[in-house]
Amino acid sequence: MARFLKNRSAVLGKAPGDLVFVGDRKVDNPTITLIEYTPDSLERTEVGNIRDVFPVKESPAVSWININGLHDMDLIRETGRGFDLHPLTMEDILNTGQRPKLEEYDNYLFISCKMMKYDEEKRIVSSEQLALVLGENFLLTFQERPGDVFDPVRERIRKKKGRIRTSTVDYLAYSLLDTIVDNYIYIIERLGEQIEDNEEQILEGPGRDSLEKINNYKRELIYLRKSIRPAREFVLQMSRLESELIRSNTLPFIKDLQDLCTQAVETVDLYRDMLSDQLDLYNTMVGNRLNEIMKILTIFSAIFIPLTFIAGIYGTNFEYLPELGFRYAYYVFWGVLVLVAALMLRFFKKKKWL
Amino acid sequence: MARFLKNRSAVLGKAPGDLVFVGDRKVDNPTITLIEYTPDSLERTEVGNIRDVFPVKESPAVSWININGLHDMDLIRETGRGFDLHPLTMEDILNTGQRPKLEEYDNYLFISCKMMKYDEEKRIVSSEQLALVLGENFLLTFQERPGDVFDPVRERIRKKKGRIRTSTVDYLAYSLLDTIVDNYIYIIERLGEQIEDNEEQILEGPGRDSLEKINNYKRELIYLRKSIRPAREFVLQMSRLESELIRSNTLPFIKDLQDLCTQAVETVDLYRDMLSDQLDLYNTMVGNRLNEIMKILTIFSAIFIPLTFIAGIYGTNFEYLPELGFRYAYYVFWGVLVLVAALMLRFFKKKKWL
Amino acid sequence: MARFLKNRSAVLGKAPGDLVFVGDRKVDNPTITLIEYTPDSLERTEVGNIRDVFPVKESPAVSWININGLHDMDLIRETGRGFDLHPLTMEDILNTGQRPKLEEYDNYLFISCKMMKYDEEKRIVSSEQLALVLGENFLLTFQERPGDVFDPVRERIRKKKGRIRTSTVDYLAYSLLDTIVDNYIYIIERLGEQIEDNEEQILEGPGRDSLEKINNYKRELIYLRKSIRPAREFVLQMSRLESELIRSNTLPFIKDLQDLCTQAVETVDLYRDMLSDQLDLYNTMVGNRLNEIMKILTIFSAIFIPLTFIAGIYGTNFEYLPELGFRYAYYVFWGVLVLVAALMLRFFKKKKWL
Amino acid sequence: MARFLKNRSAVLGKAPGDLVFVGDRKVDNPTITLIEYTPDSLERTEVGNIRDVFPVKESPAVSWININGLHDMDLIRETGRGFDLHPLTMEDILNTGQRPKLEEYDNYLFISCKMMKYDEEKRIVSSEQLALVLGENFLLTFQERPGDVFDPVRERIRKKKGRIRTSTVDYLAYSLLDTIVDNYIYIIERLGEQIEDNEEQILEGPGRDSLEKINNYKRELIYLRKSIRPAREFVLQMSRLESELIRSNTLPFIKDLQDLCTQAVETVDLYRDMLSDQLDLYNTMVGNRLNEIMKILTIFSAIFIPLTFIAGIYGTNFEYLPELGFRYAYYVFWGVLVLVAALMLRFFKKKKWL
Amino acid sequence: MARFLKNRSAVLGKAPGDLVFVGDRKVDNPTITLIEYTPDSLERTEVGNIRDVFPVKESPAVSWININGLHDMDLIRETGRGFDLHPLTMEDILNTGQRPKLEEYDNYLFISCKMMKYDEEKRIVSSEQLALVLGENFLLTFQERPGDVFDPVRERIRKKKGRIRTSTVDYLAYSLLDTIVDNYIYIIERLGEQIEDNEEQILEGPGRDSLEKINNYKRELIYLRKSIRPAREFVLQMSRLESELIRSNTLPFIKDLQDLCTQAVETVDLYRDMLSDQLDLYNTMVGNRLNEIMKILTIFSAIFIPLTFIAGIYGTNFEYLPELGFRYAYYVFWGVLVLVAALMLRFFKKKKWL
Repeated sequence: MARFLKNRSAVLGKAPGDLVFVGDRKVDNPTITLIEYTPDSLERTEVGNIRDVFPVKESPAVSWININGLHDMDLIRETGRGFDLHPLTMEDILNTGQRPKLEEYDNYLFISCKMMKYDEEKRIVSSEQLALVLGENFLLTFQERPGDVFDPVRERIRKKKGRIRTSTVDYLAYSLLDTIVDNYIYIIERLGEQIEDNEEQILEGPGRDSLEKINNYKRELIYLRKSIRPAREFVLQMSRLESELIRSNTLPFIKDLQDLCTQAVETVDLYRDMLSDQLDLYNTMVGNRLNEIMKILTIFSAIFIPLTFIAGIYGTNFEYLPELGFRYAYYVFWGVLVLVAALMLRFFKKKKWL
Repeated sequence: MARFLKNRSAVLGKAPGDLVFVGDRKVDNPTITLIEYTPDSLERTEVGNIRDVFPVKESPAVSWININGLHDMDLIRETGRGFDLHPLTMEDILNTGQRPKLEEYDNYLFISCKMMKYDEEKRIVSSEQLALVLGENFLLTFQERPGDVFDPVRERIRKKKGRIRTSTVDYLAYSLLDTIVDNYIYIIERLGEQIEDNEEQILEGPGRDSLEKINNYKRELIYLRKSIRPAREFVLQMSRLESELIRSNTLPFIKDLQDLCTQAVETVDLYRDMLSDQLDLYNTMVGNRLNEIMKILTIFSAIFIPLTFIAGIYGTNFEYLPELGFRYAYYVFWGVLVLVAALMLRFFKKKKWL
Repeated sequence: MARFLKNRSAVLGKAPGDLVFVGDRKVDNPTITLIEYTPDSLERTEVGNIRDVFPVKESPAVSWININGLHDMDLIRETGRGFDLHPLTMEDILNTGQRPKLEEYDNYLFISCKMMKYDEEKRIVSSEQLALVLGENFLLTFQERPGDVFDPVRERIRKKKGRIRTSTVDYLAYSLLDTIVDNYIYIIERLGEQIEDNEEQILEGPGRDSLEKINNYKRELIYLRKSIRPAREFVLQMSRLESELIRSNTLPFIKDLQDLCTQAVETVDLYRDMLSDQLDLYNTMVGNRLNEIMKILTIFSAIFIPLTFIAGIYGTNFEYLPELGFRYAYYVFWGVLVLVAALMLRFFKKKKWL
Repeated sequence: MARFLKNRSAVLGKAPGDLVFVGDRKVDNPTITLIEYTPDSLERTEVGNIRDVFPVKESPAVSWININGLHDMDLIRETGRGFDLHPLTMEDILNTGQRPKLEEYDNYLFISCKMMKYDEEKRIVSSEQLALVLGENFLLTFQERPGDVFDPVRERIRKKKGRIRTSTVDYLAYSLLDTIVDNYIYIIERLGEQIEDNEEQILEGPGRDSLEKINNYKRELIYLRKSIRPAREFVLQMSRLESELIRSNTLPFIKDLQDLCTQAVETVDLYRDMLSDQLDLYNTMVGNRLNEIMKILTIFSAIFIPLTFIAGIYGTNFEYLPELGFRYAYYVFWGVLVLVAALMLRFFKKKKWL
Repeated sequence: MARFLKNRSAVLGKAPGDLVFVGDRKVDNPTITLIEYTPDSLERTEVGNIRDVFPVKESPAVSWININGLHDMDLIRETGRGFDLHPLTMEDILNTGQRPKLEEYDNYLFISCKMMKYDEEKRIVSSEQLALVLGENFLLTFQERPGDVFDPVRERIRKKKGRIRTSTVDYLAYSLLDTIVDNYIYIIERLGEQIEDNEEQILEGPGRDSLEKINNYKRELIYLRKSIRPAREFVLQMSRLESELIRSNTLPFIKDLQDLCTQAVETVDLYRDMLSDQLDLYNTMVGNRLNEIMKILTIFSAIFIPLTFIAGIYGTNFEYLPELGFRYAYYVFWGVLVLVAALMLRFFKKKKWL
């Protein structure tokens, strides 16, 4: 299966709005978590039935409903009905091969993006799609499986750190997106360190290893860019939105997020340029090495081939070959050999090959 | 005949609006199919004479008239007259070398695009031009030959799946375009898998085979891009159209289609970048292989050429050559040879060639 | 003389509006042809004196005045005076090194572009500048020499084909431009066929011939692009012009022309990309061939150099060289040679060089 | 640690507005300097407690408060409170890995940029982040450590040179930014000289040294571009700002600064292009050198290999080998050798290798 | 000193508006020339004291004051005061490392650009900065040294050629700029001829000479582009200016100038592309030549190495070596040699190397 554009084929021929879960089934039983808070109160509930959550729409508190697992069609359909979501939104939630985007509907904003997580131990980046539905006073998040990067946000809510408890739900949405982009940048940093290390390795001696690394890093940057570029687009779109769902005092934070995204995209491009430079460097080093090999070959050949020829001359069996009979001929012969070799060496020294 | 810009020469010197069928004659007898539906009724008729279809303009039902085969000039002219089409529209329907586009006229929208179909068995992509004329309550489609990608849409109409039966004719047009773009993405996926496979092949050993594949894939991507880029343009144009022919509740679907087109174009570009990287990789691998060949040649030459020279010395026939008479000269001679060889091997080991 | 930017030096130091004919003198006596038509009447006159033409400005018929030959300054000055042209227009008519462009003046539109013609027999593209002045009811065209691509248009006028006889003069101007762009596309097609043929030739074996072809085609595409890009610009400009000189029912035709120009430009760019790919392919093939040559050299050297060395050993004249005296030494010697050769062949087979 | 995107990881999981100092602790005790001036008076004070500075907000004089050292969280928090700064501004002041930017708040402008300084002796560029807060009549500047490029500005204030003493605080801010950009250009100049020197070195003979230089310069230009491009952006933004904080008679100066930034960016791009050209040149020179090496090898091999073969012939021990017995055979033999060598030399001369 | 960004360092730390002459002192005594004309009168005066010129501001005639030499600070300061120039304008006049630009002030336009002159004999392009100040009815021009490209304009004024004497001062400014751009194009033409010649030289045989030429031409194009691109920008800006200083009947001329600039920029880009293609061609030719060299080496080696081996066999001194004693062994031996050589030649012929 092609890595960069997957899972669309499952949709081929379905009506738009038909619910199809595109993605691997990553969790057995979907779990629903509700966090409800006001500046003064906080409640966290594991919810069994999605219908129990619907009343939060009327509540004045900020409600964050997180759903892990996307393969239970009935649950998604039920959620969509309960929160009055457009059929396309429901299709987008389920299609995990989606290009990150923001859609504005009458009563909510829909955002889908990629959440990436770096596993320090295994040195592996895992990625999953996150769908956000931002309503008047509630936030729905849909994840493919449990485990996310939002623990710091949850802790801030619990410990009343920062302004999150005193802010509206759009600030919560911003906080989640900010955490996601922070993780992008963290991953780019880690990758960047490895790319910069590789450059030194190439300068020491260009091995096949470095070549494969360049190739892999390029792939990973392409993959990152595929998630980050559209993220920058929708954050920009968000900062220009004239929607009541984004309150004016959340706007400076979104502009800040926008700067962060720009920085992330620019850094990815910068590392891509660096990898191109590295490949150029690699090729130049390989060319240099070929030159060196050829020099050694040429020096050996050019010195010994004439010497061998001279020895060949006196290896002939001509009956009348006057030099052979001379008393010191053998020593003169050696002298000539040494002289020829010396001249050759001088020639190569002049050419700066030695 | 040039592959990318064909069939214009047949038009050279004709008056614009003159009908000329540019394309191979792909069907013998054009067939006309009329599908007429309301939420409650559905009728499908094979029509003998295009004039029988004209009354649908007055009917409140949604009518989809599909015409297979373009070489019957009289039929096209008749259709144009019956549905009040501009002469340029009629020329565009017939010119299958057309760049995909959307034209807005007073009473209808004209869209021409490429319909692509992947034959799973033969692994061949076939492409033909599709022209759509979207009127108040009818949709005309013109195909070069029978057989298309619209069977799922027809089935949805028949089985009342999704919202198609309860929607207006612009939703039908959207459904057809969506199916076409889905097929683009499906084809890009298939091609992408092959491109990604090729990369591994190159890393194993760069053969001429891989080179030709890179070349072919590049060509195919150019060909795909030529159809998909203008498609993205006209879908964008469609979403911004202030025409009554596109109802406001169809707009979210067209925006969704636009995202799909963007994703398709980006993926094509991404694969094109990957192919460039593959060619770089191929060249680097070829350079590496040349280095390896040269190393082997240099090692052999540099070891044996001096040895041969030494043997040559003692093959000379000098009368006075003292070493020849020594008792163990031959063994010393071998010793020297082994020593020289050992020194050379050490030298190459130091250079990390062995 | 530089090919791409010629003939400006003749203008150096002249006052703008000073008339200087920049170009080779391509015709001896300029000829003036007047075609005057209404839906019902048609007259074609060879005019001796340009003054005889001036009354057409007052006539209700459509008048097309074509002037072949630009070196008669007096004629041009007279024409300029008679039709009330701006001095810059007159300078632009004469300067055949002009970048194609459209200028809007109070009472007329000025367009200059390159007219290209493909000579099927000689396989040569000839190019000349065409200047158009589009007035209320007249069209002036200035050509460098007789012979143009407009015969189909003249025939349409004569035979009342299409809408030309019933349309206004702006439709006539459109028809001429359409014919010119049709010829661009025809030429690109011809060039494209040759470019695509060249690719197969390179894949068969990269010769110097293919290299020069790539180089020539690149040059020709640069040359084409220099004419076609500005043409696209001014057709776009024309379609956006809010001038009474372009009637509203001519606009759809100009938009169609615009699509044609876009297609032409995109195809030129596409072929340019293909040529870059071809050069890459060529270089890769050359690299592959070098590899093959080196392999053969290395195989020969690596097999025979050790063998020659062994023969050299037994060619030495050591007095005590025990092997020489053995009864089957010569056969053992051959055995060793064959063995060494076999080992080397096996080594190269393992490396997949054979 | 990756060089281009550092220090974000420390922020991971913090609430926006949480103060974290990202950067090395570069100074022990932060120092606060207040310069207060009117056209007639000037006072410079080292301030112990930031609270002593707050009254300047009410003073009619221009006040410039410079803070060296960012690691004292309390000081920054206090300053923020005293001057009524947004939490994001305070975060931006402390995050020294920030992308340069301008943010407009209700009562102040916030600018962060990189200040670069070239140490003539050590030939090292040091860089630190400078944050500016421009209020109605005060300017706050935050530096990571003591020592900056602003001494000329301070002297102009002291000596009443130019218009600075008679201008408002926005002119002071402009003066600081102008000094920073002047230093960018000075550094680009220095780097440019070295880049241009390198080109001559490559033409003399492409060494590994030049290759590493190309690589280093590329890196440094990337680094410079990362600071200068956003600077151009925010200066442009500044010139378009409709804020009362920028007085209309300061605008021409900001436009001038904008030209300077454009020049800086263009020059960086230009040098980057030059480095790419240098790498091409280097590779071409390496290719040329390989050709030269191969030529020498080929000349030697092609001359001596046939000669050695001929000598080999007469080294054979055939019992019946008539030439060996001829009286002048040895001289004829030499004649043949010389002839063969001469023919080869002529062949190579014809090929223009000698 | 870096060639592309010079002389800024002298400004480092100066207050904006401080006058510093950046540039070499190119003339000893500045000269001031005043040309004053109306349709009927013309006066040309060498002015000793700049104050004598100030009254022209009140005169109804068109006045052109040209100042050669910029190092006399007092003169410039005096001029600035007399014509009421902004301090930044005065700084810009003196800073000859300036990026070409146009600045609009309340009562005048300031333009700075590069004036280039091609010396036909020495084949050298000299460049100097020209600053223009266009007021209501006067034009100030500042040159670094005497000698410019404006003699044709002066002659037109003297001889009343064209419309210059009857036009306002903005037409005079246009005429000067037009002359400057004409000279750009003339220089590009000259350079273009040389570039096109070089291509043929490369095709004949790629020498080091051609390589250095490619390199030099690239540099010169970069240099030209640095002057011409900003010129295009400010001419565009000029054509859109809503200033009373540019009269409406001068506008068509400025639009014409704009086309000329576009043509100049496009041609520079085109030649830059051509140079890149030439470098590719050069490298390909070098690769081809390497192939040819290797072929010759391989043919010689592959033919003679086996032959030498065979000769070596029969040079061995085995006591029992039956072939040596055969009567026609020597002739058979030669036969074998010829046969082996013939087989090798046939093999190479099959490979199409001969």
